[in-house]
Amino acid sequence: MFDKILIANRGEIAVRIIRACREMGIKTVAVYSEADRDSLHTLLADEAICIGPAPSSQSYLNMERILAATVAMKAEAIHPGFGFLSENARFAELCQKCNIAFIGPSAEIINKMGNKSAARKTMVEAGVPVVPGSKEPVYTVEEALKMAKEIGFPVMIKASSGGGGKGMRVSWSEEDFEANFQNAQMESVKGFSDDTMYLERFVENPRHIEFQIMADKYGNVVHLGERDCSIQRRHQKVLEESPSIAISEELRKKMGETAVRAAKAVGYENAGTIEFLLDKNKNFYFMEMNTRIQVEHPVTELVSGLDLIKEQIRVAAGEKLSVTQDDIHIQGHAIECRINAENPAKNFMPCPGKITNIHIPGGNGVRVDTHIYNEYKVPANYDSMLMKLIVHGKDRAEAIAKMRSALGELIIEGIDTNLDFQFEILSNPVYQDGHKIDTGFIPDQFPEYCK
Amino acid sequence: MFDKILIANRGEIAVRIIRACREMGIKTVAVYSEADRDSLHTLLADEAICIGPAPSSQSYLNMERILAATVAMKAEAIHPGFGFLSENARFAELCQKCNIAFIGPSAEIINKMGNKSAARKTMVEAGVPVVPGSKEPVYTVEEALKMAKEIGFPVMIKASSGGGGKGMRVSWSEEDFEANFQNAQMESVKGFSDDTMYLERFVENPRHIEFQIMADKYGNVVHLGERDCSIQRRHQKVLEESPSIAISEELRKKMGETAVRAAKAVGYENAGTIEFLLDKNKNFYFMEMNTRIQVEHPVTELVSGLDLIKEQIRVAAGEKLSVTQDDIHIQGHAIECRINAENPAKNFMPCPGKITNIHIPGGNGVRVDTHIYNEYKVPANYDSMLMKLIVHGKDRAEAIAKMRSALGELIIEGIDTNLDFQFEILSNPVYQDGHKIDTGFIPDQFPEYCK
Repeated sequence: MFDKILIANRGEIAVRIIRACREMGIKTVAVYSEADRDSLHTLLADEAICIGPAPSSQSYLNMERILAATVAMKAEAIHPGFGFLSENARFAELCQKCNIAFIGPSAEIINKMGNKSAARKTMVEAGVPVVPGSKEPVYTVEEALKMAKEIGFPVMIKASSGGGGKGMRVSWSEEDFEANFQNAQMESVKGFSDDTMYLERFVENPRHIEFQIMADKYGNVVHLGERDCSIQRRHQKVLEESPSIAISEELRKKMGETAVRAAKAVGYENAGTIEFLLDKNKNFYFMEMNTRIQVEHPVTELVSGLDLIKEQIRVAAGEKLSVTQDDIHIQGHAIECRINAENPAKNFMPCPGKITNIHIPGGNGVRVDTHIYNEYKVPANYDSMLMKLIVHGKDRAEAIAKMRSALGELIIEGIDTNLDFQFEILSNPVYQDGHKIDTGFIPDQFPEYCK
Repeated sequence: MFDKILIANRGEIAVRIIRACREMGIKTVAVYSEADRDSLHTLLADEAICIGPAPSSQSYLNMERILAATVAMKAEAIHPGFGFLSENARFAELCQKCNIAFIGPSAEIINKMGNKSAARKTMVEAGVPVVPGSKEPVYTVEEALKMAKEIGFPVMIKASSGGGGKGMRVSWSEEDFEANFQNAQMESVKGFSDDTMYLERFVENPRHIEFQIMADKYGNVVHLGERDCSIQRRHQKVLEESPSIAISEELRKKMGETAVRAAKAVGYENAGTIEFLLDKNKNFYFMEMNTRIQVEHPVTELVSGLDLIKEQIRVAAGEKLSVTQDDIHIQGHAIECRINAENPAKNFMPCPGKITNIHIPGGNGVRVDTHIYNEYKVPANYDSMLMKLIVHGKDRAEAIAKMRSALGELIIEGIDTNLDFQFEILSNPVYQDGHKIDTGFIPDQFPEYCK
């Protein structure tokens, strides 16, 4: 087992990883930017090292500085968390060259799955259903439009390197195609320095269902059931749950097996997520694979009983999976609400600033993953997520009741948050019924927030 | 199901019950003393009513005021929590007369089990093993000494109405018998207005093992495994865990069946705990039955998955048990640390006062049950428990590691607490090994705290 791990991240996921390491008796090194001197991850780790100014490009995205810190602090492994360098194949490759264990899959796999059109091709070859779409990448409006006509409208225009909703547009007809394609491509060039695009049939009103995968170095792969992440705002997940009310035991088995097959097809290693679209007729289509731990991993931990971060570390250290598929029994129902520093009434504008008072709920079945504390100053430089409030109940109704109760107790003062918005979602009859949820839920049910 | 419940308690257990009610859609009424205006239970409940001045006799122990509040607020049931009126048969009887559901067993059962010598007799009749001891109550030193010689020294002198270590003394020989008997009896008269005493063989170096029982109105009784509460200071539990490292699957079955038999013998209803002493040779003896929810119930909830407070409410409302014995599978290992406002270096002197800063740990498998918050003023009038920190790991080693990590993160400033003392216990090699723990653990391992 590793003696010391460097955590190349910040915020709640850095705290989450530090806790897992502590419990495993592994020493931790935090890296922090100048804006994060007082951040909880900086304070909690056994050692902490400043790697540069606030802009991510000069600190959390700066590979050389992070690798230099790892060598200087004599850490044997790097946990990249999510975001930042977690899906950067070059970084994984540099780790390997420096003889540092990257806690995640190999550079080769990250590359293969990170490139959306290459991933799609791999999946088709593995017999995983994909949304009908372009077989080859596309670069110009002209060839794209030709392709769109073949696929049939509506089509989804996607940046090959995209993620988190960036570089994505829906085109409903020939008329709006050119503008949408150009906007999406422009975003991609700006955000990812890549003009490679591809097209897919746009699946109307789908659910976003993803399967958690865990794989070791010996070809063992298990899935840990699904997460329903259909509650999204502009392709950003807002609330996630497991299991999904839309998935029968039979469908779970089928999708789970497909996810395992997909992972095996690329020789996958460590934690990963296979994202599917599920249409009204319960057809599912591979969307993409995330080659890292996800924000929403706690809901899977609560219903499966497996600690995903610890399992990631064990697997990266060369251990076999601690469970087989037969050991996995999904129990109860878990929901996660992302609590963000943002103002829903002002188009979810981020609201950094000082927290003047905080009161955190607790009790039976309530889990809180956060890096904030009383008097903490939320910096403006990073994403606005403050906390993940996660509950575990015996069934969905109990989980909803528990989350409403917990949200009702949570107090964060001094900055604006989406706490009340989350409470409104949990109180919405369509959400509570659950059967008619799709990724259009928020614009449909809360048009006042989606102007 | 009840529409509204009054909680006749304060502190974390009142908060715990309010949360359970909220999740069940039941309205709550808090009662509070003048010292508890700003207490979290007062703030969290749907309605709150002041029932008198700070001294418990004028508020939380004042039956008339609590019943009047229940009638005035139109609550249909009272949850008594633990302590205060929770094991007061007269109160249970008055509830019945007022047509208010008392969430607990009947007055008759409370009476039967509350009187230690009567309970002992009942258990002997039910074939439950008891420590050899006096068959009849005893009132004078002379008859007690005669009896002690028959039983054989060392003997335990116990007040029939005693509890929580009050009215209890060990006599090691004839020489120290008289003084110990008189002290114990004096405490009993002072504390419980009762001079009824009884004697038992003193079991040396036992473990304190208790079984959680849950019973409905239809004669169904299940046990939810054991709790090991051997870590005690002056008969007060400090840290509890489930399962016990000393109990094999076979012994668990045997003790569990005995506990169920004991409960059935008295026609038990609602939540209860059968406390046993377990000696070095794995002989177990009935010690007493607590006819209420216990402080340490969360460890059972975490390993069994059953919400005990909700089950109490359901059963009191006339529902059948939601589980059968076959449904109960103990999973993982849970530990609870009681965090008290006290100074271990000053003989655990209570330290009420204002909390000037608080930071509560969280994350995977960490549960916090508390009524304190930032700037809360801990009143001097009540017991010193501030918080229950409870963790759930896949095994004992992980639970210990998790608790050490969580204790390391917990910050409570402004008042003294036993936080560091709990950390020392968790870090003690004898505790970590676990096999040699008995109720003498704290005086043996921490003599510096036990002068």
